[in-house]
Amino acid sequence: MSILTLPQPYLLFLGDSVDERDAKTAMGLRDWAGDRCVGEFALATATITTGLPRLTPAAARARGAQSLVIGVAPAGGIVQPNWVPALLEALRAGLDLVSGMHTRLEDVPVLRSAALELGRRLIDVRKPRQTFPVGTGRRRSGRRLLTVGTDCALGKKYTALALARAFNERDVPATFRATGQTGIMISGSGVAIDSVVADFIAGAAEELTPDAAADHWDVVEGQGSLFHPAYSGVSLGLLHGTQPDVIVMCHEAGRESVHGLPDFELPSLKEAIEVTLTLARRTNPGVRCGGVSLNTVTLSEEAANALLERHSAELGMPCADPIRGGPRFDELVSACLGA
Amino acid sequence: MSILTLPQPYLLFLGDSVDERDAKTAMGLRDWAGDRCVGEFALATATITTGLPRLTPAAARARGAQSLVIGVAPAGGIVQPNWVPALLEALRAGLDLVSGMHTRLEDVPVLRSAALELGRRLIDVRKPRQTFPVGTGRRRSGRRLLTVGTDCALGKKYTALALARAFNERDVPATFRATGQTGIMISGSGVAIDSVVADFIAGAAEELTPDAAADHWDVVEGQGSLFHPAYSGVSLGLLHGTQPDVIVMCHEAGRESVHGLPDFELPSLKEAIEVTLTLARRTNPGVRCGGVSLNTVTLSEEAANALLERHSAELGMPCADPIRGGPRFDELVSACLGA
Repeated sequence: MSILTLPQPYLLFLGDSVDERDAKTAMGLRDWAGDRCVGEFALATATITTGLPRLTPAAARARGAQSLVIGVAPAGGIVQPNWVPALLEALRAGLDLVSGMHTRLEDVPVLRSAALELGRRLIDVRKPRQTFPVGTGRRRSGRRLLTVGTDCALGKKYTALALARAFNERDVPATFRATGQTGIMISGSGVAIDSVVADFIAGAAEELTPDAAADHWDVVEGQGSLFHPAYSGVSLGLLHGTQPDVIVMCHEAGRESVHGLPDFELPSLKEAIEVTLTLARRTNPGVRCGGVSLNTVTLSEEAANALLERHSAELGMPCADPIRGGPRFDELVSACLGA
Repeated sequence: MSILTLPQPYLLFLGDSVDERDAKTAMGLRDWAGDRCVGEFALATATITTGLPRLTPAAARARGAQSLVIGVAPAGGIVQPNWVPALLEALRAGLDLVSGMHTRLEDVPVLRSAALELGRRLIDVRKPRQTFPVGTGRRRSGRRLLTVGTDCALGKKYTALALARAFNERDVPATFRATGQTGIMISGSGVAIDSVVADFIAGAAEELTPDAAADHWDVVEGQGSLFHPAYSGVSLGLLHGTQPDVIVMCHEAGRESVHGLPDFELPSLKEAIEVTLTLARRTNPGVRCGGVSLNTVTLSEEAANALLERHSAELGMPCADPIRGGPRFDELVSACLGA
């Protein structure tokens, strides 16, 4: 089995952080995997909190924690030297370490030797060593939804999490399937699809979304964009391997060009949906677009509603901001389910 | 620099082969890189020949050879134990070893220790250790042509080699750019694009086709197909990273479904060209299709000509079989050059 699986529940490590913006991972885990987080652990100098109980590694272990997740990412993404005693304390208490930082835990000699001695695992989610078979294109049982986007970094993960939660709230069996490091930490398993060798992208996506009960939905976190000059290969391999029944197109209000590449104008939502469906039909002729997920964080409520209404009317499909929720989002959920 | 570069000229190793079909690599190198092959070397029991001079490694070294290329692939793709003395002789004569076999040369202990001791290189083309930056989408100087296909294994490499050669014969400066192991051996450098980590496919393609003189053509060997359920990610990353001015669509007469996946019907040539151009415009709005390269190996000359004529008329563009050459191929070359 080559899907990465993380030991849960977690103890969230906040290091010595004094800036909540460094703690996106910890906050995301609290919000989306709160039922699998027993508490938080931080150095005495830290000033931030997730609101979860503050526990020592030993106390967390006693409450069932299996691993300590590094939930903060200071500039540079480096494991800070003054964290090391706390990380060693976690290893000694019986916890594995999970990290999505640029520095590999394995590359910190004192952690590597302690883990070896204690029989603990050091799990680097950013650069997992995973191998996959070549894709087969075989149709699998169960239903699949993939969030796709006009660009990177505009809400594909959030949309997939929100849809999976909403499906479950309607008693529709659904599993969020993670394809990036934060998603994997939230879900507890997944594939860092952008770190897979090119030949195996679709094969990895197939393994991530295996045969399932006929009424079960895999709600898959999209990566990159078919329209991104650097990452389109990842996106197409994921699209073909996932063979979604439904796609949801994600976009950010006001974004007109590829993030960081102002020369690359984004396609219109209509064009993006059409191109995506054309390609997606290759492995699932029945694919349809459930609607649009629009990130309207920069807009007032009034402006957001007007824009959502306009897009919805123009495209003839639901358009919602999952962060705002409400009836528009309910409509999107219904459309995805075909209800 | 992360483009793989091989030491040329070569001495071609034929092992103990008695079946010419096992020697595709050697024959391909003779045909396409004959000016960079000083000769062949084989065990006494071998019965096949490339027609090049039969030389000992020492004699080949004296004629300038820099490496011994394993030019045969017996079933299983394993370095045969009875080859080892000959391979050691080559190392001792001052040649590096180049292999595209499944077995890594590095994994044969006696070769590894001899290479280390003698300061020779063991180069595994199939699984090179190459790292690349993320793509930028920046437009580069010079012109680029990419061969694309309705499927895998139908002539994209051959077409690119034939076009690059034809460009040169017309005194148009052109470089064949290799993206697979056989192509890399022929060219002496390149990127095994399907072994690149997913995030860096386009970036690798960008490095492979750098800024060049305004009238220079990079003629890039395509890989996979946008329509292949397993390999489409590789193909799209290569398309976006190459940012071709011209694509040539490759197809095999009579092939109706994906090789090995009979449930996957191939698109029509018209549809394949349209989808490819739509996606290619993302990084080169001026991209056009130069024509179709049709593999007609299974047809009589009369049937081939009729089919080429029909496709050409239906699509309104040149359609040729580069193996047959002739005026149709000249027409394709002219169309690619915009002449």
